[in-house]
Amino acid sequence: MRLEKDSVGYLEIPDESYYGVHTQRAVHNFNITGRRLDKDFIISLAEVKKALAQANYDLGVLSEKKMTAITKSAEEIIGGKLHDEILVDPIQGGAGTSSNMNINEVIANRAIELLGGTKGDYDLVNPNDDVNKGQSTNDIYPTAGKLTMLKKIPKLMEQLYLLRDTFLEKSKEFDDVIKLGRTQLQDAVPITLGQEFHAYYSVIKRGIKRLETAKKEMESINLGGTAIGTGISAHPKLSETVLTKLVNITGEPLEISDDLVDATQNVENYVVLSDALKAIAISLSKIANDIRLLSSGPKTGIGEIKIPAKQNGSSIMPGKINPVIPEVMNQCSFLVMGNNVTIGLAAEHGQLELNAFEPIIFYKLIESFEVLTHGVETFNENCVKGIEADRDRCRENLERSTYMATPLAEKIGYARAADIAKESVASGRTVKEIAKDYNVPDEVLDNLKVRVN
Amino acid sequence: MRLEKDSVGYLEIPDESYYGVHTQRAVHNFNITGRRLDKDFIISLAEVKKALAQANYDLGVLSEKKMTAITKSAEEIIGGKLHDEILVDPIQGGAGTSSNMNINEVIANRAIELLGGTKGDYDLVNPNDDVNKGQSTNDIYPTAGKLTMLKKIPKLMEQLYLLRDTFLEKSKEFDDVIKLGRTQLQDAVPITLGQEFHAYYSVIKRGIKRLETAKKEMESINLGGTAIGTGISAHPKLSETVLTKLVNITGEPLEISDDLVDATQNVENYVVLSDALKAIAISLSKIANDIRLLSSGPKTGIGEIKIPAKQNGSSIMPGKINPVIPEVMNQCSFLVMGNNVTIGLAAEHGQLELNAFEPIIFYKLIESFEVLTHGVETFNENCVKGIEADRDRCRENLERSTYMATPLAEKIGYARAADIAKESVASGRTVKEIAKDYNVPDEVLDNLKVRVN
Amino acid sequence: MRLEKDSVGYLEIPDESYYGVHTQRAVHNFNITGRRLDKDFIISLAEVKKALAQANYDLGVLSEKKMTAITKSAEEIIGGKLHDEILVDPIQGGAGTSSNMNINEVIANRAIELLGGTKGDYDLVNPNDDVNKGQSTNDIYPTAGKLTMLKKIPKLMEQLYLLRDTFLEKSKEFDDVIKLGRTQLQDAVPITLGQEFHAYYSVIKRGIKRLETAKKEMESINLGGTAIGTGISAHPKLSETVLTKLVNITGEPLEISDDLVDATQNVENYVVLSDALKAIAISLSKIANDIRLLSSGPKTGIGEIKIPAKQNGSSIMPGKINPVIPEVMNQCSFLVMGNNVTIGLAAEHGQLELNAFEPIIFYKLIESFEVLTHGVETFNENCVKGIEADRDRCRENLERSTYMATPLAEKIGYARAADIAKESVASGRTVKEIAKDYNVPDEVLDNLKVRVN
Amino acid sequence: MRLEKDSVGYLEIPDESYYGVHTQRAVHNFNITGRRLDKDFIISLAEVKKALAQANYDLGVLSEKKMTAITKSAEEIIGGKLHDEILVDPIQGGAGTSSNMNINEVIANRAIELLGGTKGDYDLVNPNDDVNKGQSTNDIYPTAGKLTMLKKIPKLMEQLYLLRDTFLEKSKEFDDVIKLGRTQLQDAVPITLGQEFHAYYSVIKRGIKRLETAKKEMESINLGGTAIGTGISAHPKLSETVLTKLVNITGEPLEISDDLVDATQNVENYVVLSDALKAIAISLSKIANDIRLLSSGPKTGIGEIKIPAKQNGSSIMPGKINPVIPEVMNQCSFLVMGNNVTIGLAAEHGQLELNAFEPIIFYKLIESFEVLTHGVETFNENCVKGIEADRDRCRENLERSTYMATPLAEKIGYARAADIAKESVASGRTVKEIAKDYNVPDEVLDNLKVRVN
Repeated sequence: MRLEKDSVGYLEIPDESYYGVHTQRAVHNFNITGRRLDKDFIISLAEVKKALAQANYDLGVLSEKKMTAITKSAEEIIGGKLHDEILVDPIQGGAGTSSNMNINEVIANRAIELLGGTKGDYDLVNPNDDVNKGQSTNDIYPTAGKLTMLKKIPKLMEQLYLLRDTFLEKSKEFDDVIKLGRTQLQDAVPITLGQEFHAYYSVIKRGIKRLETAKKEMESINLGGTAIGTGISAHPKLSETVLTKLVNITGEPLEISDDLVDATQNVENYVVLSDALKAIAISLSKIANDIRLLSSGPKTGIGEIKIPAKQNGSSIMPGKINPVIPEVMNQCSFLVMGNNVTIGLAAEHGQLELNAFEPIIFYKLIESFEVLTHGVETFNENCVKGIEADRDRCRENLERSTYMATPLAEKIGYARAADIAKESVASGRTVKEIAKDYNVPDEVLDNLKVRVN
Repeated sequence: MRLEKDSVGYLEIPDESYYGVHTQRAVHNFNITGRRLDKDFIISLAEVKKALAQANYDLGVLSEKKMTAITKSAEEIIGGKLHDEILVDPIQGGAGTSSNMNINEVIANRAIELLGGTKGDYDLVNPNDDVNKGQSTNDIYPTAGKLTMLKKIPKLMEQLYLLRDTFLEKSKEFDDVIKLGRTQLQDAVPITLGQEFHAYYSVIKRGIKRLETAKKEMESINLGGTAIGTGISAHPKLSETVLTKLVNITGEPLEISDDLVDATQNVENYVVLSDALKAIAISLSKIANDIRLLSSGPKTGIGEIKIPAKQNGSSIMPGKINPVIPEVMNQCSFLVMGNNVTIGLAAEHGQLELNAFEPIIFYKLIESFEVLTHGVETFNENCVKGIEADRDRCRENLERSTYMATPLAEKIGYARAADIAKESVASGRTVKEIAKDYNVPDEVLDNLKVRVN
Repeated sequence: MRLEKDSVGYLEIPDESYYGVHTQRAVHNFNITGRRLDKDFIISLAEVKKALAQANYDLGVLSEKKMTAITKSAEEIIGGKLHDEILVDPIQGGAGTSSNMNINEVIANRAIELLGGTKGDYDLVNPNDDVNKGQSTNDIYPTAGKLTMLKKIPKLMEQLYLLRDTFLEKSKEFDDVIKLGRTQLQDAVPITLGQEFHAYYSVIKRGIKRLETAKKEMESINLGGTAIGTGISAHPKLSETVLTKLVNITGEPLEISDDLVDATQNVENYVVLSDALKAIAISLSKIANDIRLLSSGPKTGIGEIKIPAKQNGSSIMPGKINPVIPEVMNQCSFLVMGNNVTIGLAAEHGQLELNAFEPIIFYKLIESFEVLTHGVETFNENCVKGIEADRDRCRENLERSTYMATPLAEKIGYARAADIAKESVASGRTVKEIAKDYNVPDEVLDNLKVRVN
Repeated sequence: MRLEKDSVGYLEIPDESYYGVHTQRAVHNFNITGRRLDKDFIISLAEVKKALAQANYDLGVLSEKKMTAITKSAEEIIGGKLHDEILVDPIQGGAGTSSNMNINEVIANRAIELLGGTKGDYDLVNPNDDVNKGQSTNDIYPTAGKLTMLKKIPKLMEQLYLLRDTFLEKSKEFDDVIKLGRTQLQDAVPITLGQEFHAYYSVIKRGIKRLETAKKEMESINLGGTAIGTGISAHPKLSETVLTKLVNITGEPLEISDDLVDATQNVENYVVLSDALKAIAISLSKIANDIRLLSSGPKTGIGEIKIPAKQNGSSIMPGKINPVIPEVMNQCSFLVMGNNVTIGLAAEHGQLELNAFEPIIFYKLIESFEVLTHGVETFNENCVKGIEADRDRCRENLERSTYMATPLAEKIGYARAADIAKESVASGRTVKEIAKDYNVPDEVLDNLKVRVN
């Protein structure tokens, strides 16, 4: 065991550990979720640290030796190593200080090792004075958070593209399936199944577009602002210098916020990103509801489409096939909708120069991304792709309905058509048959046109 | 015009107005909703003022003359007069100070008038020193708020009782209607329509019970605590003295909180009341969803029940009858669910000795009560009472389904029964017919029992 | 009384009423909020009706006589007349059918009157067959809803512009006020009061930009789609024809959705608009919280700014001036955040070809707009404009803090600087004084630079 | 590999696996969170399975051999074994069917093994026909879910008791610390620090009481109701028989719901439990906010209490100690508040005989319990226990304020006292000094009493 010291006092740290005293205390203070920081978040933190080491070197405030060691150490983490040294619970007090210090300590100790020193020998490379040089948690943590989201967004996008394309394909496949449309769960007028699936395509396409807009919110970073956006302790040219480095490292079209004080204290941009997910979730849940409705039955529901059987539906009712995939899509959406409230709450609680509640914002945003991405994937792969039309059922349902009353109203007026429709429902006879009793001329009945697009 | 003065300066007030300078300023400051304070809230404030005038008189700190005038003035407001002098917007800053001062001023000026004086002559009766004697907004406003809720709760209760009873009656009426039950919108096993409606009865009954529990939260008041619960400026015996008066005036089983500091700053009891409404709203929305599903059609949905036609369903589709009443029930529920979030947010934002955000809490709670009460009333009167079973449809649907596979599984095992069920769905032949092909003995098939309760 | 008939049966309508049987039934069915439809919404409905009468005339399916009468009637409503005939509760079942029929009936009866007929003589002008010609509630109601939002958005924008500008002016006014910045409510490092107010300017500016983006969501309409987006009962050229008319009437840059089926059933665009309001509300609430913190005291809080006294703060504590205006700003924000949940819920509940829950969406969106617009107005006028810096207090607070430890750390390392800061807090002596005891050279201490931008 | 078959077809299962085909398919279908079922939930499922094996044996529908093997197998799981065979993602479609089948398969295969058979030899013990005998997911899963909550509640209770007791102890410790109370963040009137901490005690005590009430909601179970509450496929005496077994196994005061149809489809009781957590979370967040305010500074905030330093507060500002523990308490509360929305949404979406969305309800409820329990633990241990009063600061702040104006108003009227208070704030002189200028007699000033309780 080695002994490390911070403002609170001394603490023993296992010799083999790359993390140090701050991490140890934070692990003790924050045993909240029992989980570790997201992998993409760890990598993003390391990317930021690498960019800063290089920028500080260029600006002449970090030696080449330290820069090289820190860079190499950060690159190992980017490559997937040392992640099990990032121990701090993702939900933590202090606006991410503990996660920042955790990575500072791990990078420092690995750098020390690379320089031939012994872990804990912070004269060689210091977690605060070197790895965190010209930095504050308050610019590091949100920048890494945004880089994380920039890694999550394309993963979700990819699944949304695939789902969108499936809906478009299905809309073509079902282009000729004329069926009954329904409003308020009541029989309405004809539509094609293709049109229904095209509407799903359209709404997903729109959701993707909004997510693209929200993505831009993640490209504006506050590096160089340090503690409260005023840039204290940072080289005056740090922002511009590190920006180039970080763009090179990540390939993202980043830019520095033009009001670093604002960028440090306001976190409503994450709310906006979460809102983009929520709008998609709401659309997905509506679609999942529809698919469950349209496939209801098999015998006594609407039954106009068939979804693939993916598993036994019931432990007691043999042969039952349930819409388990749309159901899980619904649940993913409910999760995103609730997380949206948590994220909004946390954002609203910022005070003065900082929002201390960024950790829960990132934690919940990441959960929303993961769950939604996986949900969309299984929804597309295990359900939507395999949907088939029950053409017979579509035709039967259409024919049983009184939809003919609507074009008839154009000819004989709403009120008379309504009487005919009412009688048709009550008697089971068709609208046309009853219309004849009402002396509607044959040439009218023969020429009733039903527009489906 | 008369001239009135407060800490800010002088202001002209119309001679005929019973309100005074504070009200005038508050009207200027808070033009938020364009609405006035709820009638029950105005009456509750007057009840509290009356009780305090009497208690202060008993304790020897208010003259008989003033007490009598204040009492009479408050009674006029309780009787419905002068409500148009209560002008301040219900959403206001300051934890209700403006509403409290509004009623103080109106009572004072009416009392002055009753004593033969001229409005504004506050030497006769002073809004602060006399009407607000031994009081603070911080005990007056929440106490009146709770009395308001105690007036709203029975109105909702009454409608819930009626709806609950209707469900019970319907459950008896539909006791013999055997139909298909559905899980996950898929055909399951038999149930009676009566059992379905009994479940609605049961869940409403449970919601009522919870509301009764939550009602108790409104019976604990903090009168006598004044500004921050320490009772500053109030007679030491004020709490106990005014309690008796207020119980007499309102007939409510009130009690004084045993921690007045806590009672002044914590408002989570309103959250709890709102939660009770929310649980009921969730159940009502689920029921409304069910009724819309069960009545879907008329031709191509489930159609096992018929709901009363209350209006033309469509401006374009003649004869269409839509489930507009359940739909409005859903919307009332969504409103209550969203208000619940606002109320929770406001409650969480209390700071130190006070929660300044009680006005929005009361405003939204009152809206939830009004909308839910009216929603339940129309749901019961205009929909549930008139629901009829479509017995033919219930029987047809049951017979078309493969529910027989479930009791069969008890005899021949889940796996074989599943094969039979699957074939039945595919072929349209009955489970029993196919079971014969699978060599299930006749005596098994003849003795399959389906338990429905 | 005159007798009118619909699908349900006959009903007596007062002779003088412009509304008819459908309105009467809807009033009975939907006594929910006790309120009437928003004025802007009524006007928007009339604008849509006017545009359609003209388009139908151009397309040859409505006579000139009827068109002229309907147009004149609609223009009267646009001009503010007959609004008291629009009786139906804004929260209603049926996706707005009742509001649509209410305006159809009022326009029809007024048109009949203009043509010299007697109200109720629907052979002259029929609410369904003429006023609602080629229309369904399902394209009329959302189109009018969007036009309503396009009327609300500029009103909010105007107030946001004013507030934004005030923050910018204040940021200049306070440009030279150096003060202590705080993170996590703990003393941090220097900033100017001007920078703080510039951050408020920046975040509001960003909110406005997002609202502008969301505004575009309201410009895509579905006229011509009728019942379910397929255009049944409408002339094939109706969409393009009516678009020109409506653009002329309203001056808005409208366009027809390129997927009318989607546009009829999906309402997530209102969620997106509500989200834009929510993001602004979150920022405003954070700012209001800050202003309450910075003005806390007057003696024992932070007290670095003074907000204008707008009214007596307390009914019991004389001389108390409370931050009532920021407090009402907070409450407006909580309302918007809760309404956002209701709106999301309603949007998610759409089914198949329609979302029947648009009425609650519009009702809550309108409430959010009204309350936020008024809240921002009073926040700007009655608070932010009058904020003054307490320069003495700012300087005192800065000098009492240990902020010098941060630049010192750059020179002597984080760990040693921390020891010095700790001792300074404990002893009350300055960082520089203690640093001397720690043998930090004078030239280091004399050259400590604190960057504030 | 062994080959297993279900309704969908054949699938290869690793020979060593205790899970079977259904689990395998579910793992494929539901890759949502990347996590496993909660340990307490696994144990609860096993408890239910054990009780049912015994009950079925008693009722004569399960052989002793099978019963013994199933019991032993279940007991191993209760003892902590085989948990890594429970693979299915906790968020899943199908109302928990996959989790139920996962445990059925694991118990069956382990039972087969115990009986000397080979895994997959379901003739010996069948997952459906034997382990799931007389059961449906629809009674098993919610019953196990409730048992899980009954395991979580005491863990949270224990931490809440400890925190409550700490607040009580602190209230005694600080009983003699007179300080200034604040309303709306503005200086108000005196209170003791003890009273403030007693208010925290009181509100936590009340939260605990509500949680105890909500706990009862978890004690009513629906075993024997099977698929939809009608008891199909179960022995008529199963409910009563299994209840005794399960009470014995778990020691919980369970009872069978008196409306099993209701109990199967309605899940609002989980909402009620979540609401109880939310009310506590709201109170905890308010307290955490207060503690952050009261400890703000150290030099330029309120600074009336000191919280323990638990870690370096900043990576850049040396010596900074931040309120990281209250901050994490806030975040836990935000999480609970957002989860509450998800849970409400899921509950509202139940349809007809079942709510298919129980998995997300349980997942989020469990997260709320875990996070809140851990949050309260660290809040109590690492913050509240170590809070100290800064008595000097409390006295200084009190003396600097104008609180004397409030008792003065009782003697000379609110209006005059307000003038004096105003002048005191402006001039910095004390209220008493200025009162003398206003000719307030000495005997009045000498006898001003300030009540603090």
